[in-house]
Amino acid sequence: MSTGITHFLHEILNPKSVAIYGANNSGASLACIQLMNLIISDYPGKIYPIHLKLDSIMGFPAYRTLDEVPEVPDVVIIVLPPRIVPQIFKECAEKGVKYIILISGGFRELTSDRKNDLTEQIIKIAKDHGIRFIGPNCLGVFNNWITEEEGKAFNISIWERLKRNKFSIASQSGTLSSHIFFDPENLDLGLGKSISVGNEANIDIVDCLEYFKDDEQTKVIGLYIEEIKRGRKFLELAKEITPKKPVIAIYGGGSEAGNRALTSHTGSMAGDKRIYKAVFKETGIIETSKVQEFLDLALALTKGYLPRGKRIGIITNSGGPGTMLANTAESEGLIVPELSEQLQQELKEMLPPIASFKNPIDVTFDMNLPYYYITLPEILMKSGEVDVLIQYGVVGFQDVMDKYLEHERIAQHAEFKKQDPEKSDELAKSLLQPTLKNAEKYSIPIFYISPQNFNSPWSSRLRQNGAILFKLWDRPIPLIKKLCEYSEFKQTHA
Amino acid sequence: MSTGITHFLHEILNPKSVAIYGANNSGASLACIQLMNLIISDYPGKIYPIHLKLDSIMGFPAYRTLDEVPEVPDVVIIVLPPRIVPQIFKECAEKGVKYIILISGGFRELTSDRKNDLTEQIIKIAKDHGIRFIGPNCLGVFNNWITEEEGKAFNISIWERLKRNKFSIASQSGTLSSHIFFDPENLDLGLGKSISVGNEANIDIVDCLEYFKDDEQTKVIGLYIEEIKRGRKFLELAKEITPKKPVIAIYGGGSEAGNRALTSHTGSMAGDKRIYKAVFKETGIIETSKVQEFLDLALALTKGYLPRGKRIGIITNSGGPGTMLANTAESEGLIVPELSEQLQQELKEMLPPIASFKNPIDVTFDMNLPYYYITLPEILMKSGEVDVLIQYGVVGFQDVMDKYLEHERIAQHAEFKKQDPEKSDELAKSLLQPTLKNAEKYSIPIFYISPQNFNSPWSSRLRQNGAILFKLWDRPIPLIKKLCEYSEFKQTHA
Repeated sequence: MSTGITHFLHEILNPKSVAIYGANNSGASLACIQLMNLIISDYPGKIYPIHLKLDSIMGFPAYRTLDEVPEVPDVVIIVLPPRIVPQIFKECAEKGVKYIILISGGFRELTSDRKNDLTEQIIKIAKDHGIRFIGPNCLGVFNNWITEEEGKAFNISIWERLKRNKFSIASQSGTLSSHIFFDPENLDLGLGKSISVGNEANIDIVDCLEYFKDDEQTKVIGLYIEEIKRGRKFLELAKEITPKKPVIAIYGGGSEAGNRALTSHTGSMAGDKRIYKAVFKETGIIETSKVQEFLDLALALTKGYLPRGKRIGIITNSGGPGTMLANTAESEGLIVPELSEQLQQELKEMLPPIASFKNPIDVTFDMNLPYYYITLPEILMKSGEVDVLIQYGVVGFQDVMDKYLEHERIAQHAEFKKQDPEKSDELAKSLLQPTLKNAEKYSIPIFYISPQNFNSPWSSRLRQNGAILFKLWDRPIPLIKKLCEYSEFKQTHA
Repeated sequence: MSTGITHFLHEILNPKSVAIYGANNSGASLACIQLMNLIISDYPGKIYPIHLKLDSIMGFPAYRTLDEVPEVPDVVIIVLPPRIVPQIFKECAEKGVKYIILISGGFRELTSDRKNDLTEQIIKIAKDHGIRFIGPNCLGVFNNWITEEEGKAFNISIWERLKRNKFSIASQSGTLSSHIFFDPENLDLGLGKSISVGNEANIDIVDCLEYFKDDEQTKVIGLYIEEIKRGRKFLELAKEITPKKPVIAIYGGGSEAGNRALTSHTGSMAGDKRIYKAVFKETGIIETSKVQEFLDLALALTKGYLPRGKRIGIITNSGGPGTMLANTAESEGLIVPELSEQLQQELKEMLPPIASFKNPIDVTFDMNLPYYYITLPEILMKSGEVDVLIQYGVVGFQDVMDKYLEHERIAQHAEFKKQDPEKSDELAKSLLQPTLKNAEKYSIPIFYISPQNFNSPWSSRLRQNGAILFKLWDRPIPLIKKLCEYSEFKQTHA
């Protein structure tokens, strides 16, 4: 899909044809998995498998050599034992190939007693022939923007289909670029593009940052960093990007054991944790050491959830979670302001007599759904007294009731009936849409929490309507804290 | 179910008959939900609904008054407007009832301008007639040990069936005693007993602690505390219990907004966070401020997972997660020791050439399942060089393959076939059981992490075999840290 972008990484992510070395029909190898990922993603370009013996692979005609392929493929994917890779690079050069994705490991990351110069060989061949390549020792790329319409992807690295969004990842770990997406909780997030850079023999994470900077299909950038080789360029780019697009980063180095792991993992020498922390702070990069928080931040930021200040309004129908949220918020330096007398008075007229109006606002068990989902959040959003809302207890009572009806005695005697799923769909829509629109109108992000199963019918409906929903109440506060910090950075660096 | 325990709370949790005020057939009230919880839990005792007009409720004959009930119910459950509760208490006294569970709110937690003396009234009636009662303003109780065999419960507070274990909760929040269990991730944990103490007008959290202390159906205790009214007794009991049974506590007070929420929630005055922290530390109570960690601790501790020291062995097949785990471990004060030369040599002979042997042990993509699941953990457990293991990447490749076969092209051309689920069951059992036995034999807890959906077929199989499985790698390290601290406390207080 063309966007007028000329960065070479855009070409690697949008090939019209690919050749792939290493796959067969057995399924039992990384190369097969990568080819199958292309297939399940309905990659719209041409696929040319290359194999010394097979005539066809997964139904595609196979070629003995790259030379026999009837065109010059835009990208060549290589998953072969490292010792023969330099020869393949030469064949690519002869064919006129411009881009290679080199998946194979066993190059620089060998331990010292088995060192080799394979990396140097391929770097030289690439340089001599103007080839750019990703890897080695990577899981390749994912591009959910290969076609105008959502639904197809250029994907060799991810085992499942993901919703399209404008979150792009560049990662020095294949797991962080690919394998953090197999969870129903993360389906809400989706993914735009992802690049596993591996050992960075030719293309590095700084190239990715440079590409994402001007890429209009990228609104939020996620990085997993073990080592930055081009520090000056990284700083320069990061400073340019962060006032416009949020950058979320995990730094995987800094401890003794971590560095030991790194040395064997990519062969890079890790740096000092404090240096990276300082760099992130200076450049406005949002740092996290937790994968879940990385994903939570990506979800909130792709939705554009940026609180203008640190004042949290907490709406709850249960005391415990409200109290815990308030405690955590204050411990984290956020503010849970006592509401003004006037606002309390306004709430008092509408809430049940045993409710609490001060903030947390505890409506207790007695609740009126349109009031709870729409009116109460709107009053708070309009008030100007809070910058962000958390709402605990958005429970699907109908789900609970439907479940009770599975018991024979209850089914026989209860006066209530199973809810028509379409009515529940309508109800969820009617309760959520006005509030999500208000959140946009007043620029007050709202985060929901339900104690029910994340995939229960009601929770699924809330999520389908676009709510950011958490199962328990541990994650929203640290998330909001980081959003506030970035928001402040952005306000002062506009 | 009798265990020779004479504590009065054991009687409240094991009634042979209950009367319930407030329920009807509509389903649309807390009282109805509580009655339906009794029904879905197959409560084996007699149920006497009391209602002024109805002849039968959910198929049970209903009684106009308690007086008409043909026996003295062991426990009376009341969910009625607060103003009529003193009258009901008097009727209970006349009938000779010994125990009441008072669910209704609207007593002490009223805001000051609507204050009443209802609490004082019921306290006096109870005192005069030797009645003990739980509440008001609570969600009641749950007892998964009501019968010898697992499968029935005395449950008025939890909407779903839960596996039975020896984890018991006493909570000053109904949500923390009941509503944190609706998540597929928590089904592995299950629950033994749970008591929502509400406003503690008569029975408090200290009574619960006293009961759980000698209860052989309780091995691990969870507390949610907003305020401890009998501090001295609490200290005394906690000190007696923690060397034998772990106690996990969340303290919900301490911040300004938290205290504001508390005051309206239960009417109690919250204390100083530092005092509670000091009390927890002195008594060996494991403190957490996160609900998820509360549940993780409960799961590990009910399994008896107590590392003897702080040395972690990290097994991985992906560099990034291994590095991040090592980093987090060191940041948290745990040790990721470099393995001895001898042990590294032993591993080197068995691992693929590009693997890393130092710790984290990264076997890379090339993996042999029996080696990965059984041999490698066993070598480490036997070595004496680590106290606890984390294993990342226990992926169900067959699940991935089965999913690929849903695509027509792959189904048509691939040489691999769908796996027989029974064979996968056998495989999971054969890979997990030896290691879980070794974990017990060598007293080295092992925690698993998979990037796949927690309910994917392979992840479910691992969990069914008794593995503690995490989806992402953020939670195991903080969990292990707390387990190590408690283990150390226990070793020095034996």
